[in-house]
Formats: sequence, structure tokens, C-alpha cells
Amino acid sequence: MTDIAMIEAARARLHGHVRHTPLLSSPFLDDIAGRRVFVKPECLQHTGSFKFRGAWSAISALDPGLRGKGVIAFSSGNHAQGVALAAKLHGISSVIIMPSDAPRIKIDNTRAYGAEVVLYDRAKEDRDAIGARLSQDRGLTLIKPFDEPLVIAGQGTAGLEIAEQAKEAGIDQADVLVPTGGGGFVSGIAIALESKAPSFLVHPCEPEGFDDVTRSLASGKIERNDSQAGSLCDAIVTPQPGNITFPIMSRLCGKGVVVSEDEALHAVSLAFTRLKVVVEPGGAVALAAALFHGQELGDTVIAVCSGGNVDADVFRLALDRYPL
Amino acid sequence: MTDIAMIEAARARLHGHVRHTPLLSSPFLDDIAGRRVFVKPECLQHTGSFKFRGAWSAISALDPGLRGKGVIAFSSGNHAQGVALAAKLHGISSVIIMPSDAPRIKIDNTRAYGAEVVLYDRAKEDRDAIGARLSQDRGLTLIKPFDEPLVIAGQGTAGLEIAEQAKEAGIDQADVLVPTGGGGFVSGIAIALESKAPSFLVHPCEPEGFDDVTRSLASGKIERNDSQAGSLCDAIVTPQPGNITFPIMSRLCGKGVVVSEDEALHAVSLAFTRLKVVVEPGGAVALAAALFHGQELGDTVIAVCSGGNVDADVFRLALDRYPL
Repeated sequence: MTDIAMIEAARARLHGHVRHTPLLSSPFLDDIAGRRVFVKPECLQHTGSFKFRGAWSAISALDPGLRGKGVIAFSSGNHAQGVALAAKLHGISSVIIMPSDAPRIKIDNTRAYGAEVVLYDRAKEDRDAIGARLSQDRGLTLIKPFDEPLVIAGQGTAGLEIAEQAKEAGIDQADVLVPTGGGGFVSGIAIALESKAPSFLVHPCEPEGFDDVTRSLASGKIERNDSQAGSLCDAIVTPQPGNITFPIMSRLCGKGVVVSEDEALHAVSLAFTRLKVVVEPGGAVALAAALFHGQELGDTVIAVCSGGNVDADVFRLALDRYPL
Repeated sequence: MTDIAMIEAARARLHGHVRHTPLLSSPFLDDIAGRRVFVKPECLQHTGSFKFRGAWSAISALDPGLRGKGVIAFSSGNHAQGVALAAKLHGISSVIIMPSDAPRIKIDNTRAYGAEVVLYDRAKEDRDAIGARLSQDRGLTLIKPFDEPLVIAGQGTAGLEIAEQAKEAGIDQADVLVPTGGGGFVSGIAIALESKAPSFLVHPCEPEGFDDVTRSLASGKIERNDSQAGSLCDAIVTPQPGNITFPIMSRLCGKGVVVSEDEALHAVSLAFTRLKVVVEPGGAVALAAALFHGQELGDTVIAVCSGGNVDADVFRLALDRYPL
């Protein structure tokens, strides 16, 4: 089980390999929110999302003999790219299993980061069977996207940075908002802050219609989303909270905050204008919560922007719909 | 005259007030450039450009009695916003003299950062006379945009960060590319690196048609631009190098690199896709030089992105013209 010692050990392994992202702010955002808003832009992380932290943490902790055989992951998105680059920088091979109808750019990027991409037909083939066969044949180690203590520990290193940056900025109390899919990122951050900034309260943030974590925290048991497709916030859509992450979130997190897709797009546009960072809609749900759902929050908010891998078309949509 | 001691003193005054911007990179950009490319994104600085460093440096160094009377600046762009916010955070008033036909958004932003904006008619009024009268009446101190040792010292603090970040990244030789208008930023960085990373060579970068610094360095005397308008790279267009900055650049800089406006737009698009930062065209000329003019450079390049205050229309143009 991930604890603060595991997160600090992960930080030691990540040192010099993972970017220490800054803490940004803008008086214009403070005015909109009616409170102080700080932003932790993990879109500036290697591969454009926080996923690189967890991937590096898990791969770097493997026994070298096992690691040398390579790793495998299932993902069509940010986790794929994080694992691919972390593997390449360790000098090992990676296999990423992706649906054949994944966007071309994501397949190309994952390959460019050094992975062998294995495509499967969602309708006809069993992804897990393909993965199991490849793993067995080649001795590959599976790197799970969130329900894995070493991955959670890696994501938690962002929480250590938040605690230190908040202290330096003189922040002694804050709501910390984190975009949440399976819950690995918010869990890691919550464990880090439990130890390093216990007065901070962490809230998972989700888009409407995909609010499984918020509903699960409210009901006290794991709830599923009805759908997994059709959201511009695709980067953070998962079927349900993880078996490992849900108890962590239940113990440490405040209630979830749910934002509309339009609010997420508005936050994307404001991050462009006021912070000069590129955020994907799913990565902007916490900033949207800070800006437009402040009535549930205190006078200081730290919003994590989890990723920036957004197509130009979607980005244009945000700028068009929410001009300055 | 600005020296390393002045830059280090400026850093002490700036500490806790100015953002320490990260050093970014992407294997995709390395591939395009055919060499290692690192990017220092000063677009993430307060007010969206490096100008805040120089403004803070100059204002913080004023005698408190004099400072309390307020400051004045002439600018329609990034310097205006930097001075306005630095003054506000010092608890003093600022007057910014702007042409009445400046873009509405720049006037609004400068006001929002706390400045009193005084508009003048470019055709009928004498900007300097207005400034002189206001300064005299109210005892305001003029904060010049680049030809001022304390401003150059503030800009040089970015050079100290570059030296430290390069050392941490194991870079022992590099060409350092800096977008250049009047030359304050490149001069400050060059003085810092002369002391802290003497094997690095600094190059001013400019857009075609506005290459006064490049021509001045080549001829050995101050050369003017024929025009001062009509560039998408407006943020870094000035009539000629400064009287203080030109001798510094002559002594410390390698030759200038001139890029086309299209190359700058291409760099804006690539910074969006590969770095997740928003850069204005003028702020992207150094990145464009790194990507498209590598034949004049060594195997490691550090490109400074100087600002990100770009209108959505111009940003869309870059994404449209240079899709992934």
C-alpha cells in the first residue's frame, strides 16, 4: 500500500528525470473565482501529462533483470505515452496495446516515444488475452495505469511539490483540486498532503456524466459510469474508481466536484489567455471547478492541470466558444 | 553599468516575487532541429513575459521615498504590463502612456494590473512631452524598457537560472538564443552567462525586416529598421539597439539569427503541440532559429521564449498554417 515513505522513495528515483512543474497564478483568475487560485500545470511534464511520473516510478522500481525484458501497458492516451518514454529512457523496450481505431496522432506519438504499438480490433479481439500472451512469451511486466501502489507513489511526488510550493507561497490552508479518472493521481497527492500539508483538503474533480468517483465517495461504495465514451474530457474517463484507489480517496478526500464540459472548455480558454499553458479539457476540470464552483471551496484553491494533449480542433473550439 | 554583481543583487530582490521558469524539451523538437533543443518559457512569467523581471528589479531598487511617488513607463505591450503589476505589488501607483490606437485588450490588461493608463494621439501629441509633464508634476520615476542598467540586471536573472538549469541537465556547451528587440533581455542573459557559463554563446534572434541588432552587430555600428510596424512579431520590434545594450551585445554575443514570420508561426504551433506552452510570434523567434536555422549552431541549443501575450486570432493562424 502506498504511503509517504513510498512517495519519498519514488521522488528519489524520479530526481533529475521528471520536471518540477511551477505553481502559476493570475490576478484575472483570482477575480473570476473570487478567491486565490494557484495552478500546478502538469501539462508541462514530459509527454504532456502527470502520467510520466507514475510510469517512471513503476519502471525504475523493477528488478533490473526483470526490467530488462521490457514492459507492457494498455492505453490509448496519456498513460501510453508516459510508459513509452519512461521505458525508452531506461533503455528497455515497451509494448503498448491500443485499439486500432485510436486517433492516428496518439498511435504515432506513442511509437515516436519508442514503443512497439500492438493494435487490436475492439469488436473482435480480446485485449487482455493479447496482453497476457505477449507478457508470457516475452516476460514483459504490466504497468497498470492507476491501481498500482508504485504508480500512485509516482503521482504522489506532485503532491510533495505542491506542499513545498504552497509553503514557499505562504499558503497554510487550501482546497486542492485534482482531475480524476481512476484515482491514481488524486490518491498519490492526497497521501503526500496528509503528511506534508495536513490542513489541505483534496477534492477529485470530474466532468458531468462521468462522475463515478464523486458518486462513489457520496454513496460509500464503488459506482460505475453508464458510458465511457462521448466526452471531450476523454483523458480522465474510466469506468469506475480503482479497488486500491477508492479506499484511499474515501479516507483522505473531501467530496468530489463535478463540472460541465462547457466549464472545462472555458477553463481551457482561460488557461491559454491568463496562464499561457495548453491544457486538455479533461486536464482542465479542476481549474474549472476552482473558477466556477467556488461556493463549495475555501478562500485559497490549488488546481492541478493534469495534461495538455489536446488536438488543435478541440483547442480552437475552446477559444471560439469562450473568447476573451 | 550592469555587471554580474548587479544581476545577483537583482536576483535577491526578485526572490519570492518572480517565477523560476522551468527548462522544457521534447524529443520531437530535437528531431526537427537535428540537435538537442531546450526551451526556457518566460511566457510563464508573471504578466506573460520576461519584462516583469526588469520592472521588478528597477522598482525594487528605487529609494523608498522616491518609489512611493510612483513610476511611469511608455509602452503598448509587455513592458507596460510588467511595470503595472510590479508597481501594484510594491503598493505604489504607476502611469503607463499608451497610444490611443493600441489594442483594447492591452489597454484593459494594463489597467487591470493596476496602472493609470494615459492615452495619447500618435499623430497629434508628443508622447515624451506628456511623460515629462506628468513626471515633473507628480515626481514619477521613468522605468525605461531596456536601456537601463537595473532593467538589464533584472532580465539577467533569467540567465542565472539558465546557467543553473543547464548544469543540472549536464549541458556544458550551448548556443543560447534570445528574442531581441532593444536588447535588454539578451544583454542581461549574456552578462550572466559570461560569468556563470562562459562556454555558452548567446545569439540575438529577430524577425526578417526588423533585424536591426543582427545588422548592427555585423557592421559594428548602430543600424535602424526601415519600418516599425507590420510584423506579427510586434512584441520585439524596436527602432534600433539601445545605446547601453549595443556595446554589451557587441562584446558578448555571437552573430544574430534572423527568421521569417512563417518560421516564427511554425514555432508557435510546435510549442503548442510539443511543449504545451503559449508563445507569441515575437517570443518564438529564438525557438524558430533553433528549429530551422541549426546549420549555424552547435549540437545543443537553449532557446528562450520571451512572451506569450498573443491574441487568439493570431494563435489560430499559427495552428491553421502549421497543423501537426
